[in-house]
Amino acid sequence: MNNNRNILITNDDGIMAKGLHALIEMARPYGKITVVAPKEPQSGMSNAVTLNSPLRLFEYKQEEGVIYFVCTGAPVDCVKIGMSQLFQNDLPNLLLSGINHGSNASAAVLYSGTLGAAAEGVLYGIPSIGFSLTTPHNPDADFTASIFYGRMILEHYFKFPPSPDVYLNINIPEIPINKIQGIRIARQGKGAWIKEFEKRIDPHGKSYYWLTGDFRNDEPSASDTDTNLLDRGYITIVPHQVDSTHYPELERLKKIWIFN
Amino acid sequence: MNNNRNILITNDDGIMAKGLHALIEMARPYGKITVVAPKEPQSGMSNAVTLNSPLRLFEYKQEEGVIYFVCTGAPVDCVKIGMSQLFQNDLPNLLLSGINHGSNASAAVLYSGTLGAAAEGVLYGIPSIGFSLTTPHNPDADFTASIFYGRMILEHYFKFPPSPDVYLNINIPEIPINKIQGIRIARQGKGAWIKEFEKRIDPHGKSYYWLTGDFRNDEPSASDTDTNLLDRGYITIVPHQVDSTHYPELERLKKIWIFN
Repeated sequence: MNNNRNILITNDDGIMAKGLHALIEMARPYGKITVVAPKEPQSGMSNAVTLNSPLRLFEYKQEEGVIYFVCTGAPVDCVKIGMSQLFQNDLPNLLLSGINHGSNASAAVLYSGTLGAAAEGVLYGIPSIGFSLTTPHNPDADFTASIFYGRMILEHYFKFPPSPDVYLNINIPEIPINKIQGIRIARQGKGAWIKEFEKRIDPHGKSYYWLTGDFRNDEPSASDTDTNLLDRGYITIVPHQVDSTHYPELERLKKIWIFN
Repeated sequence: MNNNRNILITNDDGIMAKGLHALIEMARPYGKITVVAPKEPQSGMSNAVTLNSPLRLFEYKQEEGVIYFVCTGAPVDCVKIGMSQLFQNDLPNLLLSGINHGSNASAAVLYSGTLGAAAEGVLYGIPSIGFSLTTPHNPDADFTASIFYGRMILEHYFKFPPSPDVYLNINIPEIPINKIQGIRIARQGKGAWIKEFEKRIDPHGKSYYWLTGDFRNDEPSASDTDTNLLDRGYITIVPHQVDSTHYPELERLKKIWIFN
């Protein structure tokens, strides 16, 4: 087995998150690990980059086979600063992001810092994977099944690599390991959040708003989307791309929109 | 002409940006406008949402046909809070975002708050368009051509609407209006940023990093991508989708990754 890979690991829940350490555990057999994780939790940061303030990068600790850095920015900043400051000569050949504390299926992909980091890896030409556990943001979530099945998927990944313009979005349902029904390649389900804000009044009588909301699944329950398969107890793997051009619409508009 | 539309306008450069007011000017003939703009500049915020702190929403001012609100969050927060707090009974039937001070072609789409807001509009089922001027972030940019050609495109948009799962990314080259070569439907070009950080030393001897970098265009110059057409003096229109599943890879992986 090739255990000489140079692996970059990041996440969006920050350096202290249990899921980050579960991902390091998952990846340990496959190579040398460099962690560049956000100093603070960065959930919902999507592909955001920090333009209006400078970033700091600190070495945090070292242990056998793993060196840890923290960055004051968002997940994509972690990838960018790691690539530019830590890997000049020996580029990583695998980027892993997560394991997120919370599902990243359907429209969650758009907001996810975990997946933002994986998309950024693809822009650097690095095979990239985001992992998420469908726990409702439980800090003490059980990642046993994630590590076990994550390694099974990585073995397939190494043997039959996906196209280099693809990053994978892997979601693991938070159920006991013996209840997991299997692993399925799936598509991103259609859906969105509704009833999104909780309005409160502060002690000074002024209103403020917390983002919250319910997920509305826009897919028939029989369809093989990530959300539906997760509900049925499957681990899902969705191949995503950074090119979001809608090609059929491109061809259609070319024909009907005539500008003189 | 239908001038009874209910139009939601946002941006990522904030309430004070000249581009926002140019977009209001562009849209004014087509309906009643509600602006929900970020209080502070939010460039590079992508599809980020604010989860770890609450948001504020203030009415800022009113004028004939336009009501202005500011929100303390990112562009997607502006869309979400606007939709949930301001439009219960009379939903907007058009979302416009921008006009961004700076290009949003190629990989910039991933980081763009302007386009993040437009993607969010699609999740609410609202026809959505992002506009950007390729000025290098000049606060006094000239938006005359943007308003003129923007209206020309909107007329086509209203007559022959795109598919409801599509948001448009419109970039206008910052050249004199008589030098503009035309309008082209295009695809998102391949490319990425390189040499991304400028390292500096603070007065206390510690290092910090500013995100910067050069854009590397990965397309042959003859190809009809957004970046290349902009370089040749065309306005570009790219239809984007929120589903970023890579379908060919999905089918391929289904065949070759067999999990027992």
